[in-house]
Amino acid sequence: MALIVQKYGGTSMGSPERIKNVAKRVAKFRAQAHQVVVVVSAMSGATNQLIALTKELTANPAPRELDVVLSTGEQVSIGLLAMALQDIGVAAKSYTGGQVKILTDDAYGKARILAIDDAPIRRDLDAGNVVIVAGFQGVDAEGNITTLGRGGSDTTGVALAAALKADECQIYTDVDGVYTTDPRIVPEARKLDTVTFEEMLEMASLGSKVLQIRSVEFAGKYKVKLRVLSSFEDEGEGTLITVEENRDMEQPVISGIAFTRDEAKITVQGVPDQPGMAFQVLGPVAEANVDVDMIIQNAGRDGTADLSFTVMRGDLDKTLNVLDRVKAVIGAKSVEADKTLCKVSLVGVGMHSHPGVAARMFRTLSEEGINIRMISTSEIKISVVVDEKYLELAVRVLHKAFDLDRAV
Amino acid sequence: MALIVQKYGGTSMGSPERIKNVAKRVAKFRAQAHQVVVVVSAMSGATNQLIALTKELTANPAPRELDVVLSTGEQVSIGLLAMALQDIGVAAKSYTGGQVKILTDDAYGKARILAIDDAPIRRDLDAGNVVIVAGFQGVDAEGNITTLGRGGSDTTGVALAAALKADECQIYTDVDGVYTTDPRIVPEARKLDTVTFEEMLEMASLGSKVLQIRSVEFAGKYKVKLRVLSSFEDEGEGTLITVEENRDMEQPVISGIAFTRDEAKITVQGVPDQPGMAFQVLGPVAEANVDVDMIIQNAGRDGTADLSFTVMRGDLDKTLNVLDRVKAVIGAKSVEADKTLCKVSLVGVGMHSHPGVAARMFRTLSEEGINIRMISTSEIKISVVVDEKYLELAVRVLHKAFDLDRAV
Repeated sequence: MALIVQKYGGTSMGSPERIKNVAKRVAKFRAQAHQVVVVVSAMSGATNQLIALTKELTANPAPRELDVVLSTGEQVSIGLLAMALQDIGVAAKSYTGGQVKILTDDAYGKARILAIDDAPIRRDLDAGNVVIVAGFQGVDAEGNITTLGRGGSDTTGVALAAALKADECQIYTDVDGVYTTDPRIVPEARKLDTVTFEEMLEMASLGSKVLQIRSVEFAGKYKVKLRVLSSFEDEGEGTLITVEENRDMEQPVISGIAFTRDEAKITVQGVPDQPGMAFQVLGPVAEANVDVDMIIQNAGRDGTADLSFTVMRGDLDKTLNVLDRVKAVIGAKSVEADKTLCKVSLVGVGMHSHPGVAARMFRTLSEEGINIRMISTSEIKISVVVDEKYLELAVRVLHKAFDLDRAV
Repeated sequence: MALIVQKYGGTSMGSPERIKNVAKRVAKFRAQAHQVVVVVSAMSGATNQLIALTKELTANPAPRELDVVLSTGEQVSIGLLAMALQDIGVAAKSYTGGQVKILTDDAYGKARILAIDDAPIRRDLDAGNVVIVAGFQGVDAEGNITTLGRGGSDTTGVALAAALKADECQIYTDVDGVYTTDPRIVPEARKLDTVTFEEMLEMASLGSKVLQIRSVEFAGKYKVKLRVLSSFEDEGEGTLITVEENRDMEQPVISGIAFTRDEAKITVQGVPDQPGMAFQVLGPVAEANVDVDMIIQNAGRDGTADLSFTVMRGDLDKTLNVLDRVKAVIGAKSVEADKTLCKVSLVGVGMHSHPGVAARMFRTLSEEGINIRMISTSEIKISVVVDEKYLELAVRVLHKAFDLDRAV
C-alpha cells in the first residue's frame, strides 16, 4: 500500500466523459489498496471563460477579486470528480484550497505556498476516502482566496506530495512522458524512462511544456518522486523524474534536445569598454520587464566592445525602444537586431563527465552548413543560437548524432 | 447615513452589462453616504448549467459535493460585482459564505443559517468599503460548504440585515413591488406601498413569487424592514413589508388577491365515520411526499363520511395510486378526482375587523355564475376552489368588488 498523489490537468477533466475516465483510473489505484489524493485543474476552457467575463467588466480587475472568480473553476472540478467517484462506489471527499488548508502568501495571481495542513487529509485517507483537492488555489493568512498562477495545479500536487510524504506524485497530462525531443520534429524521438530534476528544469525552461517549472523545482527541493503520465492511455509507466543518484551508472551523455523558436538577437556595437557598461545597457532592459537570455561581450581593438544578447521576439520592439535612449547616453555606435533566430540545446547530466560533447555538436552542425550565431553552456546544457530556418534540421541531425533514437 | 443591505437576484446579475447597472445603483447609495452590504445570486442560468453538468455524471450527486459545485455560481458573482464597483471608483470587497462567515447546519441543499460573524463586515464598512456577500451559501461547523436551497439569497440578505441591525433590507427583483394581484390578469392591478409580513406570507404561499417565503418569515421574526424594488427602474419606492402596527389606521380590508392554478381535488366517498379515518387516508398520502392543502369532511347519513382534499395537479396520479390501496383497507366506497380546478384567495389583515368579507366574496362570484367547490379560511385569508376556466374572471370581479384598483 502506497500513498499516491495524482494530478489531472484541464484537458483530462475537459468533459463529463473524461471526468468519468479519471474516476475509473483513480478507482483502479484504490482497488490496489493504495491511498490516493487527487489534485485537479479547472475543466479546459473554464478559466478562459471566466477571464473573458471579467474583461467585459473592467480592463484592470483587482487581483484579489480576480482570484475569487478564477478559483471557482477548480472548485467545480473537485465536486464533479467526487460525484463521479461516488457514482462508481468509491468513497471520496473534496476540498477547496481554503478548506485543506493550503496557506499561501498574499501575492494574488502568483501566490506561493507556505504551508499545508495535512491533518484532515490524513484523517480522510485513513477513513478510506479518496481526497480531492482543488489545484491552483489557496488562502492567505487573512483567509483571502489566492491563486498560484497558470499551471499552478502541478505545484499544488507536488506540495501536497511533499507535505504528506507521498510515495509518488503522478502528473497526468496529454502526453505519455518526457521525450528526447519533440516527436513532431523527429519521429524517432524516444520516451525517456527517467530524467533528472536538473535535466527536467533545463528542458522545461527551454520550452518543453510538459511540467510547470516551479513544480519541478519544488519536487527537487523536497525530493518528491515525480512521474509524468498520459491520462488518455491505460498502459505505460510514463517518465520518472528523479534525483541523479537514483540513475543507472550507465547513463546517456545526452538525455534530450530542447529548443525555442521566436528568439531575437540584439547587438549593441561600439560600447565604451569600461566597467559597468553591461549594466548600463541591460539595466534599463530589465526595468522594461524584458527577459534577457544569452549575453556575450567581445572586446574590440579601439577601446570599445560589442555587446550581444537574445530576447523573445515579442519583446524585440520594446527592447529596441529602450536601447534607442541608452545608445545616446552611453555613446554606443549602433544597435542591430536579428529577429529570425532560434535556440537549440543539448541537455544531459552525463555531459560533465564526457568531454567533447560541445565539439561533436559543433561539428555535426557545421557538416550541415548550419552557422552558429551564439553559444552558451552550463554544467548540463549546451545551447546554440542558429537561423530559425535550420531549427528542424539541427534538431534532427543532433538527435541522430547523439544516438538519442536508440534505447539505452 | 443609513446601513442598507441590498440583494440582487440572478436576473439582475444576468450579464456584464447588468452587473454594471447594479454597480451604478450601489454607487448611488454610496454617494449618499449610506453604508451598503450587497448580497448577490448566481448569474441567471449559471446554476442550471452546473446542475446539468452534474446530471451528466450521476443521477444522485452526493449533497455535500453538489453544494461544492453549486456555490461557485454566487462566488463568480461577488468577484465580478466587486470588479465592476472598483472600475467606477467605489471601494468594494467580496466574501463567500465561508469567509463571512455564515454558519449553517449541515443540511446540504437546504441548510439553515445559525449565526453570522458581522465583525469583519462592520470593519470593512467602517473602512469605506461596499461589502459584497455571496447569497445562497454558508459553511457548517466543520467548514463544509452548504447551500440554502433555491431562492436562498433572499434569506441571506434578510439574515445579514438582522445580524447587522440594518436600517433596511432591499430586495431587487424584476418587478417593481407587490401588486394587488397579477397585472397580467387584471390590468388595473395596483402596486402596494406597504403590505404586512402576514399578508406577504399568505400571498407568497399562495403563488405570488416575489419573495422566498422563508426570507419573509425570517424578516418578520427579526423585525427587519424589508422592501421589494425593481432592479431595472431607477425611480419608485417599491413595496415596504412591515409589521402591522406601522400601517395607517385606515387600512384597506383586502390587500390583494392571490391564486394558484394546477389544483386537483380528490374525494374519497363512503369512508366509515369513525375516529382516525382521516389519518388512515391522509397518512399514506403524506408518506408519499404529497402536500395536501385544503381538507373537508362531511358526515353522511349512513354512518359513512366523504373526505375531500386538494393536491397539486402534478401529484394527482401518485396520490390516486396511494388511495387505491387505502380504499380497500378502510372499505371506502369510491375515489373520485377533479383535476381542472384553481384556488383564488383574498388576503388582508383588515379582514378580521370587517365582518361580511366572505359574504361579499361569495355573492360576487355567484353573480357571475361561478360555482364554489371548496372554501377555507384563516385570520387574514379566504380561499375558494373553483373551476380553472373561471380563474381570470373570478380574480377580475373580486379585484373590482373590493375596490383594489383605487388608491387608498
